[in-house]
Amino acid sequence: MTASIVDRIISRDLRAIARAISKIENDAPDASEILKALFAHTGKGVTIGITGAPGAGKSSLVDKLAMHYRAQRKTVGIIAVDPSSPFSGGAILGDRIRMQTLANDPGVYIRSMATRGNLGGLARATVDAVAVLDAAGYDRTLVETVGVGQDEVDIVKTADVSVVVLVPGMGDDIQAIKAGIMEIGDIFVINKAERDGVERTERELISLLEMSERSDGWHPLIVRTIATQNKGIEQFAEAIDSYAAFRKDQKTSLERFAGVAENRIIELLRERLLRRVLNESLAPGELRELALAVATRQRDPYSIVEEIIGKVQIENRHG
Amino acid sequence: MTASIVDRIISRDLRAIARAISKIENDAPDASEILKALFAHTGKGVTIGITGAPGAGKSSLVDKLAMHYRAQRKTVGIIAVDPSSPFSGGAILGDRIRMQTLANDPGVYIRSMATRGNLGGLARATVDAVAVLDAAGYDRTLVETVGVGQDEVDIVKTADVSVVVLVPGMGDDIQAIKAGIMEIGDIFVINKAERDGVERTERELISLLEMSERSDGWHPLIVRTIATQNKGIEQFAEAIDSYAAFRKDQKTSLERFAGVAENRIIELLRERLLRRVLNESLAPGELRELALAVATRQRDPYSIVEEIIGKVQIENRHG
Repeated sequence: MTASIVDRIISRDLRAIARAISKIENDAPDASEILKALFAHTGKGVTIGITGAPGAGKSSLVDKLAMHYRAQRKTVGIIAVDPSSPFSGGAILGDRIRMQTLANDPGVYIRSMATRGNLGGLARATVDAVAVLDAAGYDRTLVETVGVGQDEVDIVKTADVSVVVLVPGMGDDIQAIKAGIMEIGDIFVINKAERDGVERTERELISLLEMSERSDGWHPLIVRTIATQNKGIEQFAEAIDSYAAFRKDQKTSLERFAGVAENRIIELLRERLLRRVLNESLAPGELRELALAVATRQRDPYSIVEEIIGKVQIENRHG
Repeated sequence: MTASIVDRIISRDLRAIARAISKIENDAPDASEILKALFAHTGKGVTIGITGAPGAGKSSLVDKLAMHYRAQRKTVGIIAVDPSSPFSGGAILGDRIRMQTLANDPGVYIRSMATRGNLGGLARATVDAVAVLDAAGYDRTLVETVGVGQDEVDIVKTADVSVVVLVPGMGDDIQAIKAGIMEIGDIFVINKAERDGVERTERELISLLEMSERSDGWHPLIVRTIATQNKGIEQFAEAIDSYAAFRKDQKTSLERFAGVAENRIIELLRERLLRRVLNESLAPGELRELALAVATRQRDPYSIVEEIIGKVQIENRHG
C-alpha cells in the first residue's frame, strides 16, 4: 500500500501526489512512512521560496516565473502557503484563480496549504509537501507565502533559494520588515518597478545589504520586475540559477544544509512529542478541564505543565 | 529571592519588571517560579491586542490610545512584538522612537520583544510578559504586533480585546489577510480614514462581518481613526470598553477564557517538552551530527525523530 503510493508519486501520478499531501496535512498515520520512503528520491529539483509584504505581487511573479520555466520545458510545482487563516482552516489561495494556462498545464502542479489549529506544524507540513513534489521529479518547486510572519520566514529559509519581494515606496513598517527578513534573502526582487520610488528603494536595499555580510560570501542579487507585464522575469530566473549554482559549489553550503536539517528535526520532534504526550498523559477531556481550572483561576498553567512534564521519562542519552 | 522580585513587581518596581521580562525572554530557571507566584495577582487589568497589515499605522494608534488612557490617569503597559527578525534577535521596535511624552511618563512602561531562534516561544514569552505587567497593576496593557502571521494571530487572540487595524484601499493580498484574521477581531479600526476608499473598505468589512456569526453573539465594532491627527481615538477607547464590558457579562466568555488557557498550556508544554527531550535524550553536539547526516543524505529526518521519541516514556494517564 505504502509502496504503491510511493511508486506512483515517483512516476508523478497526480492523484497519488495529492493524496500524499493530504495525508501530510492531516498527519495520517502512514504519512511518515511515505516520507521516509520518498526521502532517497529527493534533492534533485530546486526549491524556490518566495516571501514579501502583502500587496507586493508575489502571486503574479510566481505565475510568470512558472510560465518561464514551462517555456524551457521544466516541470513546476507551486505551493501557496497561507497561515493567516487560523480558524476557518480554508486555504484562501485555493480559491484564487491562477493563470488559466498554468492551471490546465499537466507539467504544473498547484497546491495551497493553510494552517490547522493549535498543534501547528504548517512549516513542517509545507516542507514535507515540497519533499513529495521533489521526489515526484518536478524540476522547480515554488513556495509562495501570503504574509511575512515567523511561519513564512521558517518556510522560506528551508528552500534552496530564498527570494524576498519588495515594492517601491512602502512605509516605515515595511522598512522594518525588510530589515527583519534581509538575512534570508538570496535574491531581492523589486516588483512593480514602474512605480515612483524604485531608485530610492533599490538604494536603501543596497545600503542595507552592505551593512551585513553573509558567512557564505554570497552577495544577494537585486532584480527589478513588472510581473503583470512579464518584464524582468528572465533576469529573475537567471538570478535564481546563479545562486543555485553558487550554492552547489560551496563548501559552506553543507553548513546551511545542516542548519535546515536541524530545523527540520526540531520541527518534527516538537510536533510529535506534543501529540504523544497530550494523547498518552491526559485522559480524554482532561486538557479541557485543566484549561477551565485556569480560566476560573483555580490553578495556574505553569504548575499544570510541570505536572504533565513530570510524567515524562527520558531514557538516558547513553542508554 | 523569588519572593522579593515578586513583591517588587507587584509594587510596580520598574527594574524588577524589566528583570522578570528578561528572565522570561531568556527562559531563566526561576522564570517559571516567578510567574507561578504572580498568577494570583493577574486578571485585573485589560489587555488589548492590536494587529494589522504592515503600514496600517498601528504604532501611532497605540501611542495615541496610550496618551488617551494617560489623560484618564490610567497606567499603561505597551509590548511591541516583532517576530520578523529570526536571525539578528534584535527587536527593531526597541530602536523606534516612541512619542517623547510616553517614553518619559512614569505611568507608561514600554517594552519590545523579538523572536529568539529555533526553540520559538515568542507567543508564550509575550503572554508571560503581559502577565507580569498585569500583576504589576497596569490598568491597560497594549500588545502591538508588526506583522500579520500566525505568531501574531496567536498572540493577539490571547488578549482580552483583539483589534484588527485596516487602511482604506489596499490590494488583493490584504483582502486575503483581512478574511484570515476576521475571526479574531472584536473591534476593527479603519485607520488613515482621510484616504480615498474608506467607504468602500468599510462596506466590504461590513459584508465580510455579516457572513460570519460569532458564538458569543458579539457584533464586532468598526471605528474610523486618523491616528496621526488624534482623530477617532476616543471612539476607539469607547469601543474597547464596550467589548470589555460585554465580555465580563458573558457566560460564554468562560468558553473563550478556557480556549485561551488551553492554548497557553499547550504552548508552554510544547516548548518545555522539546527542551527537556533535546537536553536529556541527546549528547552535546549529537543534534548537529544528526543534522549533518541528513544534510549529506545518509539518514532521513523521520527515522531520527522516531528514534528520539522512542526514548520517551510517559506515565500512564491513570498512574
